[in-house]
Amino acid sequence: MTTHPPLPDLLLEPLLRAALIEDLGPNGDVTTRAVIPPAARYQARINARQAGVISGVPLAALAFRLVDPELKLDILAGDGAQVSAGETVLCVEGAAASILSAERVALNFMGRLSGIATLTAAFVAETRGTRARITCTRKTTPGLRVVEKQAVLHGGGAAHRYGLSDAILIKDNHIAAAGGIAPVLRAARARASHMMRIEIEVDTLEQLDAVLATGGADVVLLDNMDTATLTRAVGMVAGRLVTEASGNMRLERVAEVAATGVDYISVGALTHSAQVLDLGLDF
Amino acid sequence: MTTHPPLPDLLLEPLLRAALIEDLGPNGDVTTRAVIPPAARYQARINARQAGVISGVPLAALAFRLVDPELKLDILAGDGAQVSAGETVLCVEGAAASILSAERVALNFMGRLSGIATLTAAFVAETRGTRARITCTRKTTPGLRVVEKQAVLHGGGAAHRYGLSDAILIKDNHIAAAGGIAPVLRAARARASHMMRIEIEVDTLEQLDAVLATGGADVVLLDNMDTATLTRAVGMVAGRLVTEASGNMRLERVAEVAATGVDYISVGALTHSAQVLDLGLDF
Amino acid sequence: MTTHPPLPDLLLEPLLRAALIEDLGPNGDVTTRAVIPPAARYQARINARQAGVISGVPLAALAFRLVDPELKLDILAGDGAQVSAGETVLCVEGAAASILSAERVALNFMGRLSGIATLTAAFVAETRGTRARITCTRKTTPGLRVVEKQAVLHGGGAAHRYGLSDAILIKDNHIAAAGGIAPVLRAARARASHMMRIEIEVDTLEQLDAVLATGGADVVLLDNMDTATLTRAVGMVAGRLVTEASGNMRLERVAEVAATGVDYISVGALTHSAQVLDLGLDF
Amino acid sequence: MTTHPPLPDLLLEPLLRAALIEDLGPNGDVTTRAVIPPAARYQARINARQAGVISGVPLAALAFRLVDPELKLDILAGDGAQVSAGETVLCVEGAAASILSAERVALNFMGRLSGIATLTAAFVAETRGTRARITCTRKTTPGLRVVEKQAVLHGGGAAHRYGLSDAILIKDNHIAAAGGIAPVLRAARARASHMMRIEIEVDTLEQLDAVLATGGADVVLLDNMDTATLTRAVGMVAGRLVTEASGNMRLERVAEVAATGVDYISVGALTHSAQVLDLGLDF
Amino acid sequence: MTTHPPLPDLLLEPLLRAALIEDLGPNGDVTTRAVIPPAARYQARINARQAGVISGVPLAALAFRLVDPELKLDILAGDGAQVSAGETVLCVEGAAASILSAERVALNFMGRLSGIATLTAAFVAETRGTRARITCTRKTTPGLRVVEKQAVLHGGGAAHRYGLSDAILIKDNHIAAAGGIAPVLRAARARASHMMRIEIEVDTLEQLDAVLATGGADVVLLDNMDTATLTRAVGMVAGRLVTEASGNMRLERVAEVAATGVDYISVGALTHSAQVLDLGLDF
Amino acid sequence: MTTHPPLPDLLLEPLLRAALIEDLGPNGDVTTRAVIPPAARYQARINARQAGVISGVPLAALAFRLVDPELKLDILAGDGAQVSAGETVLCVEGAAASILSAERVALNFMGRLSGIATLTAAFVAETRGTRARITCTRKTTPGLRVVEKQAVLHGGGAAHRYGLSDAILIKDNHIAAAGGIAPVLRAARARASHMMRIEIEVDTLEQLDAVLATGGADVVLLDNMDTATLTRAVGMVAGRLVTEASGNMRLERVAEVAATGVDYISVGALTHSAQVLDLGLDF
Repeated sequence: MTTHPPLPDLLLEPLLRAALIEDLGPNGDVTTRAVIPPAARYQARINARQAGVISGVPLAALAFRLVDPELKLDILAGDGAQVSAGETVLCVEGAAASILSAERVALNFMGRLSGIATLTAAFVAETRGTRARITCTRKTTPGLRVVEKQAVLHGGGAAHRYGLSDAILIKDNHIAAAGGIAPVLRAARARASHMMRIEIEVDTLEQLDAVLATGGADVVLLDNMDTATLTRAVGMVAGRLVTEASGNMRLERVAEVAATGVDYISVGALTHSAQVLDLGLDF
Repeated sequence: MTTHPPLPDLLLEPLLRAALIEDLGPNGDVTTRAVIPPAARYQARINARQAGVISGVPLAALAFRLVDPELKLDILAGDGAQVSAGETVLCVEGAAASILSAERVALNFMGRLSGIATLTAAFVAETRGTRARITCTRKTTPGLRVVEKQAVLHGGGAAHRYGLSDAILIKDNHIAAAGGIAPVLRAARARASHMMRIEIEVDTLEQLDAVLATGGADVVLLDNMDTATLTRAVGMVAGRLVTEASGNMRLERVAEVAATGVDYISVGALTHSAQVLDLGLDF
Repeated sequence: MTTHPPLPDLLLEPLLRAALIEDLGPNGDVTTRAVIPPAARYQARINARQAGVISGVPLAALAFRLVDPELKLDILAGDGAQVSAGETVLCVEGAAASILSAERVALNFMGRLSGIATLTAAFVAETRGTRARITCTRKTTPGLRVVEKQAVLHGGGAAHRYGLSDAILIKDNHIAAAGGIAPVLRAARARASHMMRIEIEVDTLEQLDAVLATGGADVVLLDNMDTATLTRAVGMVAGRLVTEASGNMRLERVAEVAATGVDYISVGALTHSAQVLDLGLDF
Repeated sequence: MTTHPPLPDLLLEPLLRAALIEDLGPNGDVTTRAVIPPAARYQARINARQAGVISGVPLAALAFRLVDPELKLDILAGDGAQVSAGETVLCVEGAAASILSAERVALNFMGRLSGIATLTAAFVAETRGTRARITCTRKTTPGLRVVEKQAVLHGGGAAHRYGLSDAILIKDNHIAAAGGIAPVLRAARARASHMMRIEIEVDTLEQLDAVLATGGADVVLLDNMDTATLTRAVGMVAGRLVTEASGNMRLERVAEVAATGVDYISVGALTHSAQVLDLGLDF
Repeated sequence: MTTHPPLPDLLLEPLLRAALIEDLGPNGDVTTRAVIPPAARYQARINARQAGVISGVPLAALAFRLVDPELKLDILAGDGAQVSAGETVLCVEGAAASILSAERVALNFMGRLSGIATLTAAFVAETRGTRARITCTRKTTPGLRVVEKQAVLHGGGAAHRYGLSDAILIKDNHIAAAGGIAPVLRAARARASHMMRIEIEVDTLEQLDAVLATGGADVVLLDNMDTATLTRAVGMVAGRLVTEASGNMRLERVAEVAATGVDYISVGALTHSAQVLDLGLDF
Repeated sequence: MTTHPPLPDLLLEPLLRAALIEDLGPNGDVTTRAVIPPAARYQARINARQAGVISGVPLAALAFRLVDPELKLDILAGDGAQVSAGETVLCVEGAAASILSAERVALNFMGRLSGIATLTAAFVAETRGTRARITCTRKTTPGLRVVEKQAVLHGGGAAHRYGLSDAILIKDNHIAAAGGIAPVLRAARARASHMMRIEIEVDTLEQLDAVLATGGADVVLLDNMDTATLTRAVGMVAGRLVTEASGNMRLERVAEVAATGVDYISVGALTHSAQVLDLGLDF
């Protein structure tokens, strides 16, 4: 899919250290320490066992390097690469004990992130030929948002806000507590940085009318609308705001939604319910 | 399902702090800070939107308490409880801004862990009436193993080893590197603590024969065998070792596997590919 | 000045713990431990020794509470309050030893942040009656950005992007490396999230022309322009973009700049060169 | 100014990692990732834009190396070097994206610390030809004391105690709570390590008399005295104790104070109100 | 003694960083910084000043490398090596200041761990010719269990459970609270993972009878029995369970205990009361 | 022995959290979770099983409170208290499971620290009637120096420097590298803070002569001298410097050394080779 420059290792290293310590525990890999001859060396490959889009290669590489800086790594399919079943992603060569001890952490990261990238790519494929771009939500795995958001990019998806801190997204409860669409948008614009976008969720065309009349929003989230209503909403907006459709978006329906002309379709399932991509280490 | 005493909050707090900081970011919840009146108060409920088994309630409670120690919490369905669609899990009352800011982290933990518990319960239901117990693997989310392993228990599953450090599990690569089943078992037994169990993976009945002949193992992992082979393997073992079946166990097949008489069935999908349980916060 | 809901203590606590450990060292407050009778109790006040705008009160309160949870605190002037010389900000009562041990950390935070708020307020006062708002830059103290950015708000300033991650700001080096204004804006828009604003720096009216012609930017940074050029730039933009003036903005010049009609004036000195506000603890 | 061997990187690395993560955020440098071609390389220089004394070079170097270990660094002016406007401090060569992403953190550290070193050097220059040495206080930036104390040394100043833990400094409140100068000094000497110096603050010559009569102090802090009183105090001490003058020491007054014969003059402003030294990265 | 593959540095590095920061403090090694000429270089050796078994060499090596990555290290006696008085363990060459600054941390780790290994070896020597193996308990130094457990292995001892999490050990209080030996064993077996061993403590032969009658235990801890009782207990068990003797095991008595035929003898003193092995750095 | 105000919990909490996580592991206390009925409550006591001086009570209290904030604690013998065999130190009441899970960590801290306090008190008893005070060295357990140094105080000992950062201690290698006693003392005094004491080690009376002739030292360390030489050294110093004797100080010899008139006797064994004080939890 698309290529994005990788994040600096500095941002990934704490995740990897924590994950390796979680798996290695205080005794290290007791099986390997007990039975693998110290001189044993491997040439191993991480292979895809099913077709998909790869994500998490720098994490896998870092897992091997943190366990043993002497391991030699060769990356054949980087983040965002489409692989077929049987294709090799990464070669690793060196002490057998080190490779066996790092294997599971490397695969756990890559399997999960490649699963997200692959599911994203499936949604993207359904929207080909439309202006709609697929994006994700904050329904990510606690502690892994930094890499799950990248996996969506690797699958061809688009970025959304990272969290509560970097953009304003006004939802139904905010509207209710602030006393309606007009006051909530005025309050938001008064407090928002000029470097921060404002999105507001609407459930009905009446609410959309109010948003357009009030002004102050950059993006409108068209939540849980049927396809006909979405089409009318996009028509009403007429390019004055960025439009985003959301609400239980399934792969079977997404082409129809994309055809309404919305700019973005946000899909929680990308990060909360993707199945891992099956990858394995072969010797 | 079964009840297990909860882990001390001491073990959960670092996870929650990290997840809240991840979502709140350096500016906090800018939307809520901008538009929610400070005096606004809510009585809110976390409700199940679909039936399932709950896990992660202490994490959700901790999320709310860490954001605002003054929030009042009332737990209606604890970890391991079976809930139906619409049932309330947790009530929270207090400052609206605090509830809105903690909501997503609380739901992200509970949705994911309840998804694991619910999938585990589905596998367990298929094995009812047999001796087989469902258990998980090390294919967990990096950083969340501590709570994902508990979620399997909440769903009625059994514990497996935690990681590389607390039990010996000899796989095909270990056997190959150590020169065969007899030498690998001897090496393992010589190094293993008397407080540590030894499991060995076999792919064929010939290998199983060698394991039984050598001795030294406590548990045998019958990997990727068809049902007929499994039945013969269980017969050969004849209760001398604990038996565990593994290898791409699907829900449709698990009853048949359980009927072979194996003691444990380990299912990677419990933790690597469960779908979140749909839970929401209602006001 | 304006009131902003405080950040949750969760985000401040790590800063306070680190600062207290830095000052207390491994032996604690050896002077106080050696000479203060354990039964001695104080009623003390943090007083302003000069007029200014207060910021950092929750940090000071947390410093006292972390050293001794039994200290009683009474906040008389919260973040954003304008105080005169001699006015009391915070009362603290309890064990004398605890108050003496926490005093310096509390004052170091409040003095520095109130200095920023006070300098911001001075800039804001110069722009009264214009549309221009004062904002800050990324020239903050390493490790304290989270609270220094809040101090600017407490002084009546506006937020800017937090860091490299939450908005796009294209500077001269980016333009040069990407091959000019048109290609850099196209690259930025293609990669930017729909929830992220794009700002671009221009040094000349020719560059501004190119920005307006290309489109894709939300905000234009008018860098190091003299007042006459700024006035022409604002006229050229004619409300199509948000305008921000920057470049060595001194207090003496800022009214003149504000009069040009720019929307924002960003001032690095707010955070990099503010003098501390003189505050002291009196018994 | 003087040269001091640098602190080991081990002590600086946590500061740098925290500062880089603070600025890079969870998405990294989104602008650079979006628009800088991966193959672009720079030869860049950190230049002084005004004359001053440099401090923080190892921190800047570490910032670049942590973002990208492949960057090549060449240090032209080390900590403690006096530079003139336009002089180059550090050359860095390598991937443009890496240099741009690390630039601000490197400059934020160096600007602030060089500001402290430069202000210290200005005070030191005023005392030339006297026995008085300039030193700092505990009024440092929370979290940065370790490097701000070094910056004072780089400017030619002297070290003071680091914090509450490594020396005894008895202030007015301690004297009052302990019941006077004689009892406080006896209590301090009874508890103090033989490896720890004891300093006591006096505001009047009567108090100084009591300190000299009691014994037990190593250093006397002559607080907020006018020049005539200071002169008499130094005469009374007659070399039996180390003398330190403090209390709102301004650059204009410090030569006069130094002429009284005091050994040390402590200046809070060195660390709490220094202006940054203007440094920039040029390509 | 025996050789065990070392733990990955990843698991040791946090310990070393903390210990070095503890000793170096915020000013670094002020003595060395003040008086050692920067150009001074050393060739130094860590020598044993008494005979013993070495443990902690990778920690010492890491201490030197973390202080100064340019130091050259040569390990002459690795973990588990028996050395005589005067023998060299480790050579280190490079900047004198670096060697002096890291020396104490390196020696503190090695002295303490070699003390444990040496005491373990003394116990092991007493049991030569019997089946009994020496093992340790959870009476370790808080924070150092990971390396103290390895030191026991280096001395020829055997591993026990690591902590509360990786094996079940039922003590007298558990038996009492659960209502006796039969119910406690049933509860334990119902909850224990199939990968976890169960040990139960008995103080009398009657309790041992109950354990044997109930079944469900893997290991029995024969606590505080005299030698005659131990002999009878071992006879009663007759190889059906692993046997472990414990309770104030002194070096003078251990041969007698080993002669009873027990499988393991656990000795708290190995970790809680070993004397350091005297090691020194010579230039 | 003497009473010292306790360190703030803030400084102890990180140690306790790390030690509890080390022991509880990721599954918590699996034995207790499996077999202790949730409703079971205990009234338990930590009793001394042998006479000694107590240290570490706040750590034990914190261990119980961190595992379960609802436990009720009653401290009968605080830090520095002399207890006899059988005496109760601490009562704890509440959930049996919580008490059992925290017990070992509480005892590990208290046993080790009380061992240090008790050994210190034994040395102190030998010096009664002399001016000599007992003090410790930097030969502490990595990571525990903060509490081991306090334990020495609880046993009636005196503080020494904490680490490399807070005082200057010139040893033989420093003297050699700097070119002799006169140059090393001049270099040290030129660089040392006026708040920092300088100690210098001498092995011979000739070196002592040089130290006295040069000046600049506050304390002289008389290393490895026999008693006659020590007596002559103390006479030569004649009160001009603080004197400290060191070098393999055994309990049997310390009275003789104290009788020479030295001010301090430093004993590495206090922290590196103390045996734990036997304490146990009784129900």
